[in-house]
Amino acid sequence: MKSNTIAAIATPMTNSGIGIIRISGDEALDIIEKVFKPKKKDKKIKDVKTYTAHYGHVYDESTLLDECIVLVMKGPHSYTAEDVVEINCHGGVVVMKKVLEAVFKAGATPAEPGEFTKRAFLNGRIDLSEAEAVMDLIQSKNEFAMSTSLKQLEGALGKKITEIRKQIIHSVAFIESALDDPEHYSVDGFSDELKDQVEVIINQLNEFLENADNGRILKEGIQTVIVGKPNAGKSSVLNVLLGEERAIVTDIAGTTRDTLEESIQIKGIPLNIIDTAGIRDTNDLIEKIGVDKAKDLLTKADLVLYVVDTSDPLTKDDEEIMELIEDKQTIVLLNKADLDQVVKVSDLKEKGFEQIVQISAKEQTGIEELYQLIQDIFFEGHVSFNDEIYLTNMRHKTEVSEALKSLAMVLQSIEDGMPEDFFSIDLLDAYEHLGFITGESVGEDLVNEIFAEFCMGK
Amino acid sequence: MKSNTIAAIATPMTNSGIGIIRISGDEALDIIEKVFKPKKKDKKIKDVKTYTAHYGHVYDESTLLDECIVLVMKGPHSYTAEDVVEINCHGGVVVMKKVLEAVFKAGATPAEPGEFTKRAFLNGRIDLSEAEAVMDLIQSKNEFAMSTSLKQLEGALGKKITEIRKQIIHSVAFIESALDDPEHYSVDGFSDELKDQVEVIINQLNEFLENADNGRILKEGIQTVIVGKPNAGKSSVLNVLLGEERAIVTDIAGTTRDTLEESIQIKGIPLNIIDTAGIRDTNDLIEKIGVDKAKDLLTKADLVLYVVDTSDPLTKDDEEIMELIEDKQTIVLLNKADLDQVVKVSDLKEKGFEQIVQISAKEQTGIEELYQLIQDIFFEGHVSFNDEIYLTNMRHKTEVSEALKSLAMVLQSIEDGMPEDFFSIDLLDAYEHLGFITGESVGEDLVNEIFAEFCMGK
Repeated sequence: MKSNTIAAIATPMTNSGIGIIRISGDEALDIIEKVFKPKKKDKKIKDVKTYTAHYGHVYDESTLLDECIVLVMKGPHSYTAEDVVEINCHGGVVVMKKVLEAVFKAGATPAEPGEFTKRAFLNGRIDLSEAEAVMDLIQSKNEFAMSTSLKQLEGALGKKITEIRKQIIHSVAFIESALDDPEHYSVDGFSDELKDQVEVIINQLNEFLENADNGRILKEGIQTVIVGKPNAGKSSVLNVLLGEERAIVTDIAGTTRDTLEESIQIKGIPLNIIDTAGIRDTNDLIEKIGVDKAKDLLTKADLVLYVVDTSDPLTKDDEEIMELIEDKQTIVLLNKADLDQVVKVSDLKEKGFEQIVQISAKEQTGIEELYQLIQDIFFEGHVSFNDEIYLTNMRHKTEVSEALKSLAMVLQSIEDGMPEDFFSIDLLDAYEHLGFITGESVGEDLVNEIFAEFCMGK
Repeated sequence: MKSNTIAAIATPMTNSGIGIIRISGDEALDIIEKVFKPKKKDKKIKDVKTYTAHYGHVYDESTLLDECIVLVMKGPHSYTAEDVVEINCHGGVVVMKKVLEAVFKAGATPAEPGEFTKRAFLNGRIDLSEAEAVMDLIQSKNEFAMSTSLKQLEGALGKKITEIRKQIIHSVAFIESALDDPEHYSVDGFSDELKDQVEVIINQLNEFLENADNGRILKEGIQTVIVGKPNAGKSSVLNVLLGEERAIVTDIAGTTRDTLEESIQIKGIPLNIIDTAGIRDTNDLIEKIGVDKAKDLLTKADLVLYVVDTSDPLTKDDEEIMELIEDKQTIVLLNKADLDQVVKVSDLKEKGFEQIVQISAKEQTGIEELYQLIQDIFFEGHVSFNDEIYLTNMRHKTEVSEALKSLAMVLQSIEDGMPEDFFSIDLLDAYEHLGFITGESVGEDLVNEIFAEFCMGK
């Protein structure tokens, strides 16, 4: 298929060390020939080997724009399976724009968001679930989301779905053959066999769906808000939780400076922790603005960590906090367990709290118990991160649900002793819905819709 | 010189298509060997040719992190003149951090901001003015700043300064020789010769300084604020000025969406235009908040474009605007020149305005006159963008000024008939100051200070 050659800036439009202008299509090499002059003057960029890099200068006609390194990856072994050229120039916004403009002038057309990956899909290099994983991988907020997306990108979900579809189409083919050619194919006992097979598939798909909710939590991270009155030890708790993580985060300066939220992992479970210290420390609890902010944060919280200083009696402030969190999934942390306890576990139980852990942020006791409790609450005892395939994409979840409905109807038809061609219709329905995941039975509109959500240059 | 191997993320810490982790130093190839597995399993990354790219996967020990393309550039023909490896991975923040962490684990140490470029300088690949141009190029706000930085990066300033220094040191050497060995070297008539030479150098350096102010304006862009009462035609004026530029800007979605400021070029002169439409259109002129905002913008303005609807009498609103801009460099645009004129040029002259242009945004008349006026105001008739070297760096300007002071003292000494060794001291002073620009006579502290202002990964 002859298609136009596209180009876009593949790095963010922010000043930084390196900026990349990506070009893909049949004309990619002709275009780079027009805008790029290699340092070695006798080098013909069209004739260079694939997967080689070349130092030189990029021009807009006769105007020098930048020095750069050009990376040539010829199709089909490239990101899009077409000829791809990447211009690595200085990462200034003006520089990148000017280089992109020169590339447009030389014949490229602006790429739609996601168009590079869309081409990889349309050219058959990756399936649709793999293409979707690219964006999920880029947007992943934590290690779990990253490894799930990566697994999907490497084709784990696609392979599993393709395998199931193969089983289904095999059964459909058998039914069709038996109906066409009853002399050679017998359907005696087939419905029992089919029943077993469909049940196995249903179990597999159900497992996907069950994992999907865990997957969502793991992908997004558990929104966790720490509350407590001043000096209850919220900051110490936060520091204990952040521990090593924080050190790693701060290795890279300037990335989280302007946000209150810290992302950590506890036993592999990602938590987005928001400390409300700023709101409470000033004793502004009664002030409308402070309370509103806290309320707002609490509304969105999956989990509240309510820190109580057990060496100090509960006060009116605590009453107000309790009121705010009464509907939320809460773990009470009875802090300063190392000091004399004025507040007892029973005091909090009386107030209706059930999940209570005695900790000492100072002596680092009770922390493991807290971790275990978080895991128990969210994953009913089991979280596995290894070979499990997680459906973290809403679209995939819907298609699996639809496939399950069709397969349930197959079972019903078998139960009701319906003729075999009834099975076929529902089996084919399930086959098609699963095909939507890998893109094998997907229409152009859906493809466009999916890739429109991509970022520019990918 | 054996130095540690450094690594940093060279693209912004924002999700995008591609992220680059850059590694430089003696161990770069050993480190990539540890974290990267090429697709072709028998490929030894240490043995690959320079300037080649390799597809594969990046690992943190046994944990798969991402698929990536690794670009190998062996020293001395690399950015730092050391072995450089760039990992092009998916541009997700979590992905980039994880890959960087794996690289650290494998033995790299975090790069300081600007450390890659600093190494290029310390390893003698580029001089200090070229190194400084890297950051200027990345941060350039417009085409002029970009081409000036690029010229400097390509060594134009460094070459000129080196040439001048060579002339100076030649004279010093001659004086020293003549004093040491009067039999063979005669200083007869030398002071006249030196005077001529120093005067030529002074002229050249003075030209640099004179250009420097134009350079600054061109580099930063002229801060231009459009004011006028509602319906005076501010938006039409803005649209006329933006013209083609705007179309180019909007080719790249999302880059300027959140700013009021538009950068355009008029006869090659960059203007940063701020429309105050939002403030005035609601008739909120009298409201404190609106006026404060406008005042604040006007304080920072190099130029005010005051748009007056000549088909409508001047009102109290105009009086207020005139009060606000009375101290500013202002061009009055008598708009709607195509309609009957109620407001005349003389009315504005009476109010004390001198620079007045009659335009019709609708019919696009008077625009050329406006452009010419802007050029006249800021460049007293001449702006050249071609072979001129612009000093846009404050530090360079200071050193040139210091060198000029020393050279003036040389002239003074010649005038006063002082002995030749007096000339030497001041000549050497000038020589040293100019050397600060290229980094030839620069100390470690200054080098550290200069590179600390760089962005990460460069």
